[in-house]
Amino acid sequence: MSDCNRQVWLVSRPTGWPSEENFRLVETPMPVPGEGQVLVRMLYTSVDPYLRGRMRERASYIDPIPLDSVMQASSVGRVVQSRNPKFAEGAYVGGMLGWQEYAVAGEREIRTIDPTLAPVSTALGILGMPGLTAYFGLTEILQAKAGEILLVSGAAGAVGSVAGQIGKILGMRVAGIAGGEAKIRWLLDDLKFDAAYDYQAESDHRARIAALCPGGVDCYFDNVGGAISDGALLNINERARIAICGQISQYNLDKPEMGPRLLFQLIVKRARMEGFLVFDFAKRYGPALTQMAEWVRAGRLISRETVIDGIENTPRAFLGMMRGENTGKMIVRIAAE
Amino acid sequence: MSDCNRQVWLVSRPTGWPSEENFRLVETPMPVPGEGQVLVRMLYTSVDPYLRGRMRERASYIDPIPLDSVMQASSVGRVVQSRNPKFAEGAYVGGMLGWQEYAVAGEREIRTIDPTLAPVSTALGILGMPGLTAYFGLTEILQAKAGEILLVSGAAGAVGSVAGQIGKILGMRVAGIAGGEAKIRWLLDDLKFDAAYDYQAESDHRARIAALCPGGVDCYFDNVGGAISDGALLNINERARIAICGQISQYNLDKPEMGPRLLFQLIVKRARMEGFLVFDFAKRYGPALTQMAEWVRAGRLISRETVIDGIENTPRAFLGMMRGENTGKMIVRIAAE
Repeated sequence: MSDCNRQVWLVSRPTGWPSEENFRLVETPMPVPGEGQVLVRMLYTSVDPYLRGRMRERASYIDPIPLDSVMQASSVGRVVQSRNPKFAEGAYVGGMLGWQEYAVAGEREIRTIDPTLAPVSTALGILGMPGLTAYFGLTEILQAKAGEILLVSGAAGAVGSVAGQIGKILGMRVAGIAGGEAKIRWLLDDLKFDAAYDYQAESDHRARIAALCPGGVDCYFDNVGGAISDGALLNINERARIAICGQISQYNLDKPEMGPRLLFQLIVKRARMEGFLVFDFAKRYGPALTQMAEWVRAGRLISRETVIDGIENTPRAFLGMMRGENTGKMIVRIAAE
Repeated sequence: MSDCNRQVWLVSRPTGWPSEENFRLVETPMPVPGEGQVLVRMLYTSVDPYLRGRMRERASYIDPIPLDSVMQASSVGRVVQSRNPKFAEGAYVGGMLGWQEYAVAGEREIRTIDPTLAPVSTALGILGMPGLTAYFGLTEILQAKAGEILLVSGAAGAVGSVAGQIGKILGMRVAGIAGGEAKIRWLLDDLKFDAAYDYQAESDHRARIAALCPGGVDCYFDNVGGAISDGALLNINERARIAICGQISQYNLDKPEMGPRLLFQLIVKRARMEGFLVFDFAKRYGPALTQMAEWVRAGRLISRETVIDGIENTPRAFLGMMRGENTGKMIVRIAAE
């Protein structure tokens, strides 16, 4: 075992688009577990859109990540040294363990992952925060019902791809919006979306969504915001629900983009728009994960990962994800299993 | 009794702000009630923001008013000739009887108004559509609760002034936004709002609302939209609810105004925004009106009307209401009671 721990630190706060200069690869001494703690060797770490918000100085719903400290993020690893009888050496664990090769953690910071259930990396994606976000967004916020029409933006991303698939499982007609022909083919061919279009090849989203969803939109699962969401809003049906899950088109702007004021449409359609965070459903993760794992095992939920190798490439993976270079969940492999 | 009926017709569709030229005063023959119908002599008619939408060619939630026909609107009058045993001559009735001096109506188009309950003109305001809009907006859409902080825009208007008062009755802290010092005084002195400000004297609504509601905003009853609502959205608390009742700042624009994209705030605060129409609650008007009438009788709900005289002045009253010249409900007196 190495005697040093490589970490990626946040060293400056971006204005506008982040760059690799906001991060630094730092070698620190190998941490030593105290009584009740374990030492985890990381296998995978996660890059997610919400991390952009945590890089800001001003807190939103969670505290900002302090400067000159390791980037906080979900990771999955293996216990290599244990001073806690609940975690055997060799056990797979997950938690907010950050962008680093090793971490020390107490029992309240980690949970055990069952490697026989699914590949352990799925704990960062379809069987982790992104999958749960899709699940609660669809079932709780959208109150999705069989026979309804679901539109998903960011549909080839970690959350959107699961949201669309759950929509199909629930018996909805599912349309997706994603960037690039390859993602569209994946949505249609592999995930069995009913319809999809490439937003990069379109400017009139209102017309394109109208063509995509001739019956209108009952539920809109929004990951992106901006002009695509304007087009969606102008196509909603009466009593439509809109789940605001993410607004990635806006995350790297210094100040809010200007867009047309369209909220009168909510009156005309008696529609509801609601923002949510998956953390608010934490008490119900257990049964939700059981259901999701069942769908994964039955082949009804397909997981795809875009894997980047090497802790040193985590910033690049994060930036690529923000540009939409991933299909499905973007993860970084820190060490081979 | 006159042998002619003066009506106000819609003769052209406005682009942008309507003007008196969109209307024409027309003399038509006195209508004659058929079997089962009554002839109503109008006492009051109503000018409401939603009529602007009905002047458009493109339908929204209800059909447009046809050109070269009488403007449709709520009116209150008295039966002067009856061929229906359910309506005695002299009875007060209300319905969508339009901007005209006389109308013929069947029993499904009118309802009886009890003049001992409150002045009959209140059937156009506090005990009519605007009052019911406030009631259901507050109780159903906002799910308003005692101890919460309510912010109302358009607070001195027909709907807003009732919404704020119901908020007080329910035990909320109520802040209002209206145009002009006189309206602010009315909100604070007569309607007992806890706080209020004049939007015409402000440009930084975000800061002004923050000062007005130091505890943040739990419920926002929105009648206006635009920059005021941007300021409100940036002051909401976690789990806030926003009722989109009207967007009068936008009704006279040829195309949507541009404004900052702020929907990420709904995620941060896990907030809900919902549009509604009072017509969707029609089956529950009865008990709601009973409750409202009780509050009016007990002096807990105060009604104020801005009254313009003469059918020929109805377009002017409508335009004045769009400019905010009314305090409380703007009505037109067509004939003396």
